[in-house]
Amino acid sequence: GLLFRVGEDWYFLFVLGVLMATISFMMDLIIFRLYEAHRWLYQEVGDYLVLKYLSWTIYPVALTAFSTGFANSITPHSGGSGIPELKTILSGVELEEYLAIKNFGAKVVGLTCTLSAGSTVFLGKLGPFVHLSSMVAAYLGKMRTSVIREYEDKFKQNEMLVAAQAVGVATVFGAPISGVLFSIEVMSSHFAVRDYWRGFFAATCGAFMFRLLAVFNSEQETIAALFKSDLKIDFPFDLPETFFFVILGAICGAIACAYLFCQRWLLAAVKENRLTGRLLATDKPLYTALVVLLLASITFPPGLGQLMASRLSMKEHLISLFDNRSWFVLAQNVSMAAPQLGDPRGLWQEWCHPSATIFGTLVFFLVLGLLSLPVPNPTGAAIGRLHGEVLALLFPHGIRTEGTAYPIVPSGYALAGAAAFSGAVTYSVSTALLVCEATGHMAHVLPVVLAVLVANAIAQKWQPSFYDGTIIVKK
Amino acid sequence: GLLFRVGEDWYFLFVLGVLMATISFMMDLIIFRLYEAHRWLYQEVGDYLVLKYLSWTIYPVALTAFSTGFANSITPHSGGSGIPELKTILSGVELEEYLAIKNFGAKVVGLTCTLSAGSTVFLGKLGPFVHLSSMVAAYLGKMRTSVIREYEDKFKQNEMLVAAQAVGVATVFGAPISGVLFSIEVMSSHFAVRDYWRGFFAATCGAFMFRLLAVFNSEQETIAALFKSDLKIDFPFDLPETFFFVILGAICGAIACAYLFCQRWLLAAVKENRLTGRLLATDKPLYTALVVLLLASITFPPGLGQLMASRLSMKEHLISLFDNRSWFVLAQNVSMAAPQLGDPRGLWQEWCHPSATIFGTLVFFLVLGLLSLPVPNPTGAAIGRLHGEVLALLFPHGIRTEGTAYPIVPSGYALAGAAAFSGAVTYSVSTALLVCEATGHMAHVLPVVLAVLVANAIAQKWQPSFYDGTIIVKK
Repeated sequence: GLLFRVGEDWYFLFVLGVLMATISFMMDLIIFRLYEAHRWLYQEVGDYLVLKYLSWTIYPVALTAFSTGFANSITPHSGGSGIPELKTILSGVELEEYLAIKNFGAKVVGLTCTLSAGSTVFLGKLGPFVHLSSMVAAYLGKMRTSVIREYEDKFKQNEMLVAAQAVGVATVFGAPISGVLFSIEVMSSHFAVRDYWRGFFAATCGAFMFRLLAVFNSEQETIAALFKSDLKIDFPFDLPETFFFVILGAICGAIACAYLFCQRWLLAAVKENRLTGRLLATDKPLYTALVVLLLASITFPPGLGQLMASRLSMKEHLISLFDNRSWFVLAQNVSMAAPQLGDPRGLWQEWCHPSATIFGTLVFFLVLGLLSLPVPNPTGAAIGRLHGEVLALLFPHGIRTEGTAYPIVPSGYALAGAAAFSGAVTYSVSTALLVCEATGHMAHVLPVVLAVLVANAIAQKWQPSFYDGTIIVKK
Repeated sequence: GLLFRVGEDWYFLFVLGVLMATISFMMDLIIFRLYEAHRWLYQEVGDYLVLKYLSWTIYPVALTAFSTGFANSITPHSGGSGIPELKTILSGVELEEYLAIKNFGAKVVGLTCTLSAGSTVFLGKLGPFVHLSSMVAAYLGKMRTSVIREYEDKFKQNEMLVAAQAVGVATVFGAPISGVLFSIEVMSSHFAVRDYWRGFFAATCGAFMFRLLAVFNSEQETIAALFKSDLKIDFPFDLPETFFFVILGAICGAIACAYLFCQRWLLAAVKENRLTGRLLATDKPLYTALVVLLLASITFPPGLGQLMASRLSMKEHLISLFDNRSWFVLAQNVSMAAPQLGDPRGLWQEWCHPSATIFGTLVFFLVLGLLSLPVPNPTGAAIGRLHGEVLALLFPHGIRTEGTAYPIVPSGYALAGAAAFSGAVTYSVSTALLVCEATGHMAHVLPVVLAVLVANAIAQKWQPSFYDGTIIVKK
């Protein structure tokens, strides 16, 4: 019989969710350990600048070169973002090999190593993880059909893939609802409410397990949002600020256009250039190593890195960008006792450079983010943070001139920026819900949605989406 | 050209959203004024019990009798919830007359009067409002085709209806995202991502306008959630509490089954009984007046009403149920200065009866809610609140035995109960997001979703949904 609308294979969806959550969590754990090792190495080598430079650059270069080489030696299908290929599969094209389970190990190892180098090279976990989740779903589906000796129909396979994509998004961000919506928006053009239910069920199992493991590992005291933010619910923002949120949306849309253009141009240029094209075709590990070496040299902390908070990991970047205190105000009271290392409330100091100011640091971070490899999230949050910090500087006592003064909270703009930029790049509006779920804060939902809509309108007018762009270049 | 995925008729969606938001807001305002007038009348008549009784009962009886009579005299299509009929229309059946704009005025007046009697009779605004929104959309569509002399196709009409339904939900709760999701879940079985985008755009315009009007009317200082709740984000709930949330989901599912059964039985019994059946067919206003008189007599404050906080309006019920302090703890310190009348922080005292305790009051409220006319929301919140208060009583210092003590927060359970009960009754999971959007609080999203899934599994196994049940009885 039917166990409500999820259908008879709810156990299958449950297993998929729990499995992917465990993998996602273990991956995060290993990435964190490898990242800690790098930080430890960098600190231990002492004050010799050459040693510092070598320890800073060689570690990520070795990791990424190894990951590319390892993955490439097993299969050519383990690289890349994954979402463009999945979109192609869902539209009806047969890419049987692409979902083969033998690519799974290579992709896990490759992704872990690449993300461990994340303090220097920004790469997203989302796309590859959705690919991983689809592989597991395809494998589980084959296993089931071989056990119950039932003919596996194409229709059911696609149903499973849709659920797997929701699980992939949900277990990266611990966000069940937006996981479903984002995967629907990015992947399909039509879908059944039945699929939505199945995705919802699987994504909830996944997100719950993902947060549960964090509690078991004593990272968190209880199940809570991934990037807890202490934003106010009573008075989240002043009414005229809506205008600034809309402007932020327009800025994010424009920057997303520039980003999408640069990204396509870069992809094509690398392919067409004789030197890089040959290198990419024949010796991918060497090519990756060279790119990483270049980027790591730029982010070297005693060099340009001091201008871009490069000592922070990806997660720390986001936590510091969502900090609900105004950096500008904090910077005026630097004389206060510096918080202990590892305290998230002290992360903002990485952005405060004595000679370049917070704004300079943020701008530099943005420019590099735009020229660097694809990584929507921290870029958008940084745009929003910069916008918010400038507003906090312009209106130190809030906008209203009479009555109670409510200072501007820059982290609200960081939320909106993250949602608007990633929404514009991927052509989706559910990123507004994604940032709400990831921070556990919903009072900003209306201005965030407005910013996302404006950014989308601009990006969709001028550029193809990130995934469509990749498909265009690969053709 | 296309203005991104919303399509060329974005101005149409914008107008629809803004218009429905204004109507929703004006309606709320008038309802509040009429409700205030009733409260004033009840207080002014002095201490004569007979006068008090008359003023308590005659007012809502007159309002509802007038509304039924007025609406009936114009058209028979203005009554009822609206959602079952819309579901029928979307499935392809022609009910042209049902969306005619001439029913609009009758429905607005009828709904306003009925809801103004809301302190005694519980009735939902959601269903009728979705019907209103669809009427407006159909009318705007006709207007447009007559202006641009374009053939109006069935396909486009349905697209508009889907968007209108999202707007209807969004402008009742000020919740853009869950408005879209709820309308999709309840109305359709398949849909296009393009429709989802259009609904999203229109619902955002509507929800924004709806909250904006509240600011212009000085009800709120800024754009914020409808039922702001001060729940903690740092430590929303302890891990073992997840178990209690799941139990709450099961309880809500079981009660939803009982409710759905009673509701169908009552609908059929009223129709089949010779006396009530004839009354319903020939003299609807009299029938309504008698039912309201009966209910108002039960809720008479000096009588049984003192056991069910009947002096609170629907909105005050929800605000008091979502109060983040434990009533049980508050009741132990009643000696503290009573807050001023009208302060939302004093509303809980309505639930604290000297001889019957908070629990008795809640149980009584529930029993009546179950036997009364359909109103998912406060019933579910009350179930959850009762569950939470009992837990707070059983574990006064929280669940964990070592380390920091975190007391149980009953309002978290009220949130989950509201979502689980209304989700089970309507067969939808997006109610989980709806309560998050309506309260601006997202940290409880995972346990709330779990409770909703469990409640849905139970309800879908044993009973048809509220809307399907109504369709079955009407056949």
